[in-house]
Amino acid sequence: MRQFIVIGHDAPADPDFSLDDLTGGAGRLDVLCRCVNSTFFLSHAIREDVRCRLVLRDEFTLRFEGSELRRLNPDERSTAALIRKALERRDEAIGHAEVETSPGVYLSRKGFAATLDDAVREGTVVELHEEGNPVVDVEPPEDPVFVLSDHRDFAEREAALLAETAAARVRLGPKRLHADHAITVAHNYLDTGGYARY
Amino acid sequence: MRQFIVIGHDAPADPDFSLDDLTGGAGRLDVLCRCVNSTFFLSHAIREDVRCRLVLRDEFTLRFEGSELRRLNPDERSTAALIRKALERRDEAIGHAEVETSPGVYLSRKGFAATLDDAVREGTVVELHEEGNPVVDVEPPEDPVFVLSDHRDFAEREAALLAETAAARVRLGPKRLHADHAITVAHNYLDTGGYARY
Repeated sequence: MRQFIVIGHDAPADPDFSLDDLTGGAGRLDVLCRCVNSTFFLSHAIREDVRCRLVLRDEFTLRFEGSELRRLNPDERSTAALIRKALERRDEAIGHAEVETSPGVYLSRKGFAATLDDAVREGTVVELHEEGNPVVDVEPPEDPVFVLSDHRDFAEREAALLAETAAARVRLGPKRLHADHAITVAHNYLDTGGYARY
Repeated sequence: MRQFIVIGHDAPADPDFSLDDLTGGAGRLDVLCRCVNSTFFLSHAIREDVRCRLVLRDEFTLRFEGSELRRLNPDERSTAALIRKALERRDEAIGHAEVETSPGVYLSRKGFAATLDDAVREGTVVELHEEGNPVVDVEPPEDPVFVLSDHRDFAEREAALLAETAAARVRLGPKRLHADHAITVAHNYLDTGGYARY
């Protein structure tokens, strides 16, 4: 299974934001919504064998399961509405237990460290970073867990955790990409088996 | 220069749409907004040497110039607002003359055929299509003009025009991608010189 973890540093941890202003008013939630889109959407299909986790302010984690998703649409606004709906139930997320807030969407009170712990048990952590090795030089692991940051760089503590746990640190090209674009490129790399199968 | 032409079959040709419903109410304008995003955005930078044209209902064309853009933001809503603002001035677009509706955004009363004519004079037309040749087998032209369709397939007349004018027909992988994801993959292919330079 492919996985993506996206760290949202400024993203809301409560549902008090407007769907009319996802950039400034909702801490660049637009970036995270596009990451969900890139993770799951194919033309007229959903990638089922994929998982995406959004870490919100190191306080909550939203887990999206491709095989279970039912009400996901490609546009930012409707994805933001799903996230807001999830955060409306944040009081039900007690300890590290998850609450399913819509089909295939799970909310838990976990920060990045706890979420990374989960991911390490499920696959091989790969940090996407502009100083990493070219992706074409790295054999893709069977169950890759790509970790990305939103519009900000990884915080020092996040970078330290990744240095400890990531099996590889790769870059996808010579340009620094938006997180959602990086997910699209990573998918294409895996879809083609390292640009070999078309 | 790299160029992308995206055909919006259901996109609005007038400004009477709500920014609160870009999917159903505005003919999947969300797809086109994400295509503009993928065309121009790098992390904390704009790709300057890139042009994007959106064809709206075979009636209007919006040309976005990377080197001139000033008020473009990554989120769908603000891009849709730029498009709506352009369409508010549609009566000023007379014949094939263009109107600059915001910095770097030009509206003209041109359908796909006229827009493709312009593009043929400016570069080498490449059709992105799932039945094309693997992109890695095609030498990228110096000034590629990639032509894509929105959430619908090319109409018969569009496909016929492309068959006449396109120098190549390529596919980007084994999966059918959303148009905006295809743009991201095409950029990455060119950025890396065919997955060679990282």
